[in-house]
Order: sequence, then C-alpha cells, then structure tokens
Amino acid sequence: MEFEDLIRELRAIRISGNAEALANLLEQVLMADVAEAIKEQLARQTFRIREVRDLMVLMDDQSAAALMGYFPSTLQEVLVELLEPAKLAKIIDAMPHDERADLFNLLSEEEQSELLQGMSQPEREDMQRLASYDEGTVGSVMTSDFATVDAQATAADAIKHLRATGKDKETIYQTYVLDEDLSLVGTVSLKDLIMAEPDDKIADFMTMDPLFVRADEEREVAAQAISKYDLLAIPVLDEKKHLVGIVTYDDAMDVASEEADMDFRKVGAVGSIAGGLKEASIRLLYKKRVFWLVLLVFGNIFSGAGIAYFEDTIAAYIALVFFLPLLVDSGGNAGSQSATLMVRALATGEVMMKDWASMLGRELAVAGLLGATMAAAVSVLGIWRGGMEIAIVVALTMQLVVIVGSVIGMSLPFLLSKLKFDPATASAPLITSIADACGVIIYFAIATVILDIPAAIA
Amino acid sequence: MEFEDLIRELRAIRISGNAEALANLLEQVLMADVAEAIKEQLARQTFRIREVRDLMVLMDDQSAAALMGYFPSTLQEVLVELLEPAKLAKIIDAMPHDERADLFNLLSEEEQSELLQGMSQPEREDMQRLASYDEGTVGSVMTSDFATVDAQATAADAIKHLRATGKDKETIYQTYVLDEDLSLVGTVSLKDLIMAEPDDKIADFMTMDPLFVRADEEREVAAQAISKYDLLAIPVLDEKKHLVGIVTYDDAMDVASEEADMDFRKVGAVGSIAGGLKEASIRLLYKKRVFWLVLLVFGNIFSGAGIAYFEDTIAAYIALVFFLPLLVDSGGNAGSQSATLMVRALATGEVMMKDWASMLGRELAVAGLLGATMAAAVSVLGIWRGGMEIAIVVALTMQLVVIVGSVIGMSLPFLLSKLKFDPATASAPLITSIADACGVIIYFAIATVILDIPAAIA
Repeated sequence: MEFEDLIRELRAIRISGNAEALANLLEQVLMADVAEAIKEQLARQTFRIREVRDLMVLMDDQSAAALMGYFPSTLQEVLVELLEPAKLAKIIDAMPHDERADLFNLLSEEEQSELLQGMSQPEREDMQRLASYDEGTVGSVMTSDFATVDAQATAADAIKHLRATGKDKETIYQTYVLDEDLSLVGTVSLKDLIMAEPDDKIADFMTMDPLFVRADEEREVAAQAISKYDLLAIPVLDEKKHLVGIVTYDDAMDVASEEADMDFRKVGAVGSIAGGLKEASIRLLYKKRVFWLVLLVFGNIFSGAGIAYFEDTIAAYIALVFFLPLLVDSGGNAGSQSATLMVRALATGEVMMKDWASMLGRELAVAGLLGATMAAAVSVLGIWRGGMEIAIVVALTMQLVVIVGSVIGMSLPFLLSKLKFDPATASAPLITSIADACGVIIYFAIATVILDIPAAIA
Repeated sequence: MEFEDLIRELRAIRISGNAEALANLLEQVLMADVAEAIKEQLARQTFRIREVRDLMVLMDDQSAAALMGYFPSTLQEVLVELLEPAKLAKIIDAMPHDERADLFNLLSEEEQSELLQGMSQPEREDMQRLASYDEGTVGSVMTSDFATVDAQATAADAIKHLRATGKDKETIYQTYVLDEDLSLVGTVSLKDLIMAEPDDKIADFMTMDPLFVRADEEREVAAQAISKYDLLAIPVLDEKKHLVGIVTYDDAMDVASEEADMDFRKVGAVGSIAGGLKEASIRLLYKKRVFWLVLLVFGNIFSGAGIAYFEDTIAAYIALVFFLPLLVDSGGNAGSQSATLMVRALATGEVMMKDWASMLGRELAVAGLLGATMAAAVSVLGIWRGGMEIAIVVALTMQLVVIVGSVIGMSLPFLLSKLKFDPATASAPLITSIADACGVIIYFAIATVILDIPAAIA
C-alpha cells in the first residue's frame, strides 16, 4: 500500500472512530510503515499529534505499544501528555522492556510514581533498574526480557519451556543458562536445541564462557561485539557478574547507525543532533550549528591576525595574495582528509590509542608524497604568475603546509580521545581553521625570508 | 587469551607443524579473534603471509574456510596464489556460498575453470550465478544457502526437515516456502514453528507476501529494509520473481558499516577506500587523497583569480585582507554543515529527492538566522579594525556568504543524486572551495560598491 493511501485511510478511520476498520488495516500493513507515514505527515504539518493520539486510543494496546516504539522521544513526550493515564499505563505495559524504560525516563516524577504504583513489584523493580542506566551505556539499550533455561534440563524440556514462556520474550533464539547465584554459565541457541537429540542435557552442549559486555560500558562496545562475532544477542552482566539483560542484534544495528550519524554530524561541525534531520526543528538546527560557526570565527581571527602582521610583505608583493587561498586551503584539505580517516577508525575500534606512533610514520610518508606532488604542480603556476622566486616560495610552502596539516589532522583525534573527548569533535572545519592559521604564518614567513622583505614589526 | 599469547602460540605451532595443538587452540578461541590478531601482525610486518598459509594447511578445512572469510580481499588474493590447488578447492568448498563467490571473483580465468571442474553441476551453477552479480548489488552480498519447506508440511515435519538439512545452512531461523515455479509464497520463522502446534500446516500460519528485495538493486536497500523492519534475513528475488537467495542480518550490518565508512571518507574528500585504514597501503592512500587535493587546487584558483581581479580594491583598503579568511571560511563552514546533514540523510533514505523544496525553505530560515548572528558578531570586529564603513561591508558580506554557502551545501548533494552520482561526493572540502570562490567575489564586490573604489578592470 502506498503511503498516501495509508494516510488517507488512517484519517478516515480517525474521523469515523471505527476501531474494527483500524484493526483490519493494521493486519495488512507493517507498523514500521505506519509510523513512517505518520512521522512524514507530522513533519509536513499535514497531520496533528492529537490525531495520532486518537488513533492510538482506537488501537489495541499491543499495536499502540509497537507504534509508540517507532516514534522519536520528542514525539513520545507529547503523546505521553495527551494520552489518558489509564490507556498510557496499558500501552507502557505492552512495550518491550527496553523501550518502556526509555519512555519512563521522559515522564515527570509525578507521572513516574503514578505509573509505578499500578505495576507488580518485580515489574516495577525491573523498570526502575533499566531506567537507571545512563544514556549511552550498554544498560540503556539492553532489555531484561530474555529467556533462561536450566542446565540440567534436556533439549526437549528446554524447547517445551520456551514454548510455554517464550511468546513475549525479545528473542528465543538465544537462551541463557544461570547458576543459583544468577551468574551466567552458558548460552544455547535455538539452533543448538533443535539440532541436539531430545534427551541431550543442556549442560553437555551449551556454549560455556560466552562473550558478554558490562552494563556500564559504552553502548558501542555491545554493538561492535555483535557485529564482529555475528551474534544474535550478547548477554549483559552487572558488576557482580549477574546476568541483568541482553542486547539484541536489531538494537545493535540502531546503535551503530545512530553512532555513525552522530560522528558524521560532529565531523561536519554540526554537533550531535539525536534523531532524524527531518524531525529536527529550525531552532535545534540553529543552536547546534551556530556554536561551531562562531567558534570557528575565532580560529579565523588568528589567520586574519597573521595576515595583518605580514601586511607589509603583502603590500610589497601583492601577487602573493593570489596563492593565499590555494596554499592555505591545501593544508586544511589534507588535514581534514587525515582527520576523517582517523575519526572513523577510532570510532569503530579499528585503530587504538597505542597505534598513534605507527600511524604517524605512515601519515608522514603519505603527506610527504602528497606535498611533493602538489608543490610540483603549483610551482608551474608560481613561475607563470610571479617568476622563479615566487615559485620557490609557493612550492616550499605547499610541501610544508600539507605535511603540517596532515599531522594536525591525524593527531587531534588521538589527542581528544586521550583527553576523554569524542574524537569526532576534531571536525573538518576545526582542522581547516587550525591548519589555515598555520598555513598563513608558514607562507608569509617563507616569503619574508626568501623575498628578503622586512616583516611588519622587524 | 590475550592477542600476544595467541600469536605466540600460533608461531610455535607453525614451526612445530603440530596440527593437533592447533585444533586444540582453535577450540578455545574465536576465529574472529584469530583473524584479527593475524591481520594486526601482518600490518606490523611481524608475521608473513606464507606463515598464514602454513597455518591454514595445518587446519581442518572448516576452520581454514572460516578464517579465510574474515580476511580482506587483498589478503585472500595472495593466499589463493600461495595455497596448493587441492587444499584451496577444499577450503572454498567449505566456505559459505556468498563468501565463496566473492573469492571466486578474485581468481584468474584459468584458476576459475580449474576450480569449477572439480564441482558438481548444481554447485557450479550456483557459484557462477552468485559470482555474476555486480559489486554493490544485493546479489553480491546474498547467499543461496537458504532453507526451504513445503507449504503442505506440518510444523513437526518442517522441524524434522530442518534438523536433517539445516546444519550447514546460513540460517534456519527463517525458512522459505516456494511454489512449484520456485516463486516465493511465504516465510516461516523458527519461532513460529516452535510455537505452532505440531500438527498445524505451514500454509495456515506462514507469513504471506513477505517483504523482499531484487537481486539487481543496490545492496543498501537490503540493509535498510533489514534494519527498518528488524528482520533476521530478507529474501532476494530475480526478475522472474524466483527466490535466488537471502541477505542475513549479519551481512546487512557489514554493508551498513562499510557504506557509512565510504560516505564518511567521501565527505572527507578521500574517495572511497574499501576495507580498513590499517590495511590500506601508503600507495593506495596517496592515490585516493591526491586526486581530491589536486582537484581542489582548481577550485582555489578561482578564489585566487577573484582576489587578483580585485587587487586594486585590496591595495586601497589593505585592512580588508584581515577579514578575508574569516568571511570566506564562514560561508564554507556553513556549507559543509548543510552538506554533511544532507549527505547522510540521503544515504540512509531519511530524505528523498522530492524533499528538496521543503528542505530548502528550512535551510533558508536556519541560514538566515545564522548569518544574522554572525553578521552582528563580526560587525563589532569591523568597527574596531576599520570603522563603520568596513563594518557594514563585513556584516553584509557575512549575512550573504552564510546563506549562499548553506544553499550550495544543501543543494549539491541533491544535484549529484539527480545526476546519478553518489551525494557523498559533495565533500566538505569541495563545498568549501566552491563557497570560498563565491565568498571572495561577494566580499570584494560589496566592498567595491560601498567603499566606492574602481575595480581593476572597470
């Protein structure tokens, strides 16, 4: 079904209030598509959040919970306000444990305690624990809704147990074996269970000492492990080595994609906007972008001051100005290339802090070759525009600025990482600004010496 | 086990030629870690590819095949040369169908036909078909190794069938139901099979009209669908609607990560380097980077020419040069911000071609606000450095360059996409160069008019 048809039907159903028609429609379409169609209409302001609320009220709780899970937190926040407390409680109850904890964190304290009152004690404790993990940690993306099985059970027993208890679990493709301390002793995949003889004991064929992550580690750690080892899910342990949750591959995919988006935006000097570009308000975009633009102005004031310092050199050889953008930008461009490669390699864990020295050697080799090539190219231009002396100045400058820019570009991400900042903060524009200021000074210093001009102050 | 210990043991085993010790070691460690340790040693040149070959000869074929699958194609190519044809054939036979087809494409024609001769006809045809898909298509990342089941079978029959045939399948968590034409009529998950009553017929509870992708679509399409709908695998159909393969979630994760890397690198003006940064040779890095650096020089020649054209203006008001980097870079920075946001949003499918007009409206609003803020900030600097007239020139220029830069930055990715280029080619440095040249002209044109200076030629 096309999005337009879907939206048309949703509108008609909202007006008629026909819950049965809505149930029929939801059987034919995927909830991810319903959510996307609604988000698109909201962004175009051709659909109102109140209308979404009305539709959620018409739906069964399972569907409303699924739909809620596809919405960004900004939208969830408004819906929480608009929904009746009784309906909201039912929807939250039907949500997966991890999504429900995220939603819980959006509520006011009053709403939180109201909601907790309506829950059974184990559910309440589970929700409070999941909601307590800091954003960006493994704990914040894990779910506590995993399947467990007894080590002494047979494969047939385990399958029977999964049939009885697994219906609403996040996944039954991985099952976890705990000892009486709730410590993790092994995992069994559903494939293992199916392939085993019905009488085989779990303890005899489970995977011992499985890979795990800690709840307080960064969420990327879980995503990287799942991707590297092709896992369906990874168990999460607390500081006492108890199994407190699992991260599933689909959540890992979301984490990897969000992290890539955030790195991308930081490198483009936009700051980290969580969520989609279409959903970002003009106000948010302004706020995230203006910070960097103003900050970079200060970087450029250094370049300007460098130029002002050498005003006499410029006045004596006005032809030097022709080469200014070319030389200065080449250093910045080489630097932003290096930074780009390094930021992403550090983010994906491909390159570690300890690799700095060996990467520096390679960077110097590559930058040396690049600088020499560029110097040869611009020296021709130099002879044509200003004669041999200018050509020498320009070529020497080019060789140096490309090397300096590249080394700054590759080193800054490491330095930031060392100082516990996100390496992606070494954005291309930041590197460019720093390399520019260095380039101005290198250029005019070389020019002053070779062309034998007295500097402004000298 | 630490990587150093692992490498030490591998070295010792290679020298002693003790196949049993190797088999024991491989039981205790994960193959992904063995592969990573070896790749790291190779990059540091403390391990030789011949030694890897020796280890592969000592391993059983299954392990050697798994190890081969973790290596980048550059390394596979050398290993193919070094391995005995008989051992190579066994290793290839044990590899998953998709990885095996990729490896096949690395062989010379002679080696290919030699290899094909040793295979059964269905295997040969399968390999040839998989290897025939263009790189970057769904076909190039799918596997033909999927499980099928009869629509008339019961759940119990289907599980029995999977036990008998599923051991070496890529996944048994999704099973596909075909009609006599080999067309796809439905899918069943292993969870569905487990949860169903043993006597239930597949036809009664399978998912009809499942989502699918076409083999000739771009591979990102499969990865995006798997991520959006939280699938374990997505079926791949050919132009006759026959089921020819599946893409599994783990391959989708690799595709998403590689695509993010490639976009990242393109935006950083490095070109698309496939594979890891550590494995890239100095020669490859030089080649990928020099192209962009030289190309961008041409962009900067326009800026230089613009400056040369206004040399008289500059000579009359040398103070203008102070603001040159600041104004010109601000336009470039604003542009690279916009481009960054747009490139990634287009790549992930969040923003479509049809959204250009609505995005342009928002961009103008944001850029207008940003420009006004920046103009206010620099006008203070302008008064201080050069008086009221200079301040007006500088503020007006700032407002304009931020808007022009932003519009170029957001529009170029759309334009490239329209022309069937990758939007990520609108790299930050490219946007910066174009915005720079525009900035120079805007700046000096405004200065010439307001300060009433005759231009060079006029």
